[in-house]
Amino acid sequence: MFHLLHVLLVSYLVACNALDRHFLRPISDSDLHPADGVSCESWQFGVETNNVRDWKHVPNACEDYIGHYMLGGHYRSDSAVVVTEAIKFAEAFELVGDGKDVWIFDVDETTLSNLPYYAANGFGVEPYNSTAFNEWVNQSAAPALPESLKLYKKLLSLEIKVIFLTGRREPTREATSTNLQSAGFHTWEKLLLKGVDVKTNSLVFKSGERKKLVEQGYRIVGNTGDQWSDLLGSPEGNRTFKLPDPMYYVA
Amino acid sequence: MFHLLHVLLVSYLVACNALDRHFLRPISDSDLHPADGVSCESWQFGVETNNVRDWKHVPNACEDYIGHYMLGGHYRSDSAVVVTEAIKFAEAFELVGDGKDVWIFDVDETTLSNLPYYAANGFGVEPYNSTAFNEWVNQSAAPALPESLKLYKKLLSLEIKVIFLTGRREPTREATSTNLQSAGFHTWEKLLLKGVDVKTNSLVFKSGERKKLVEQGYRIVGNTGDQWSDLLGSPEGNRTFKLPDPMYYVA
Repeated sequence: MFHLLHVLLVSYLVACNALDRHFLRPISDSDLHPADGVSCESWQFGVETNNVRDWKHVPNACEDYIGHYMLGGHYRSDSAVVVTEAIKFAEAFELVGDGKDVWIFDVDETTLSNLPYYAANGFGVEPYNSTAFNEWVNQSAAPALPESLKLYKKLLSLEIKVIFLTGRREPTREATSTNLQSAGFHTWEKLLLKGVDVKTNSLVFKSGERKKLVEQGYRIVGNTGDQWSDLLGSPEGNRTFKLPDPMYYVA
Repeated sequence: MFHLLHVLLVSYLVACNALDRHFLRPISDSDLHPADGVSCESWQFGVETNNVRDWKHVPNACEDYIGHYMLGGHYRSDSAVVVTEAIKFAEAFELVGDGKDVWIFDVDETTLSNLPYYAANGFGVEPYNSTAFNEWVNQSAAPALPESLKLYKKLLSLEIKVIFLTGRREPTREATSTNLQSAGFHTWEKLLLKGVDVKTNSLVFKSGERKKLVEQGYRIVGNTGDQWSDLLGSPEGNRTFKLPDPMYYVA
């Protein structure tokens, strides 16, 4: 009997699959097999849930898929869900109000969008090119991520101070600071960058910096980043918020 | 039993029909605004990334969307990505080989699929009904999640022992054990259920049980679950794997 149930389930899965192919746009072989025999959508699911790690670039077959995701409104919509939850959380949180309540933001793909750069460079299909990327950073031309700017303004209105904690290196401090200002992030408690000699990965560097902040008496109300390495590692803060980023991976 | 089969058959047909409606009709306002002004896809992103928490049921407007996701091959494909990564990780992991290397699996929506139940109950739109769900559990009729069964077999072949750690309560031990066996999970080191008097939430209960395992000398190579509460909280094990589940939330 259980076998029969199972057969039924499987038959309908197959039937639905057929419908799926019929009504969606034509699915090409490369959509279904970008890397390990999975669709680009499922690869993206794996990335965003921290199951797929240490990848060097977006699978070649997924350039169109990721491009559509980033430019077609879906990226903005996913970001909006995160910010909606963050605002609900911040509004309900009982602050001490002594100026030590802080919220941490990463910079790239969290407050500033490098989409103009990545759109011209295959949406993450091309391996990371530090020279070209640093040239882009030094232009201070990255726009704000609109949903994150909304969260930032809400936090300031709640008298939560903002700390930027980024894997960008110290020599880009001025370019980063100029860019944050021009994008609408006008004030902050601290802007923490990675020293030129720091060799640890992002997760170790960032959790170490958070530890120092807690030792300085700050209370981390929330933490927002596009990479899991922005968010994992003690102390995490009261709550973390993971923004979407299917274009690159930082350990 | 034939009644159940009939219900299942009708549910799957409805789900498949819903799918074709989903893609043929113009997108209505309720598709775009199921809850907080976001699409069902973005709500799902928020859920799977642990940004959207403590929700009581799937937004009403997302029943068709989630039904399509669960039955249309996408759920299976997302699960396959997770299992592919888990197998890669397990194969590369340096085991001690003294019989204390273990892998933890949750049960519901991790090893056993309650999709036949949820397909007949609105794919998570209807609030949790413990009486109806327990009746289903006591039938021991849940099929295996095929990707998880694949991982399970691989782990046994690598001589990693399996421990099931579930929020199901002790009185369902026999039904759960029978179901695991009939679904193809034939052997295990331990099957840990929640005692009837345990009041802590799943995250506290499960991390507490993992702590006991470590104190007993086990080394947790990996941990697989469909809820973040299966995976968060120290000790986490060497690596965690998050399976998809947009149908319900367990804190």
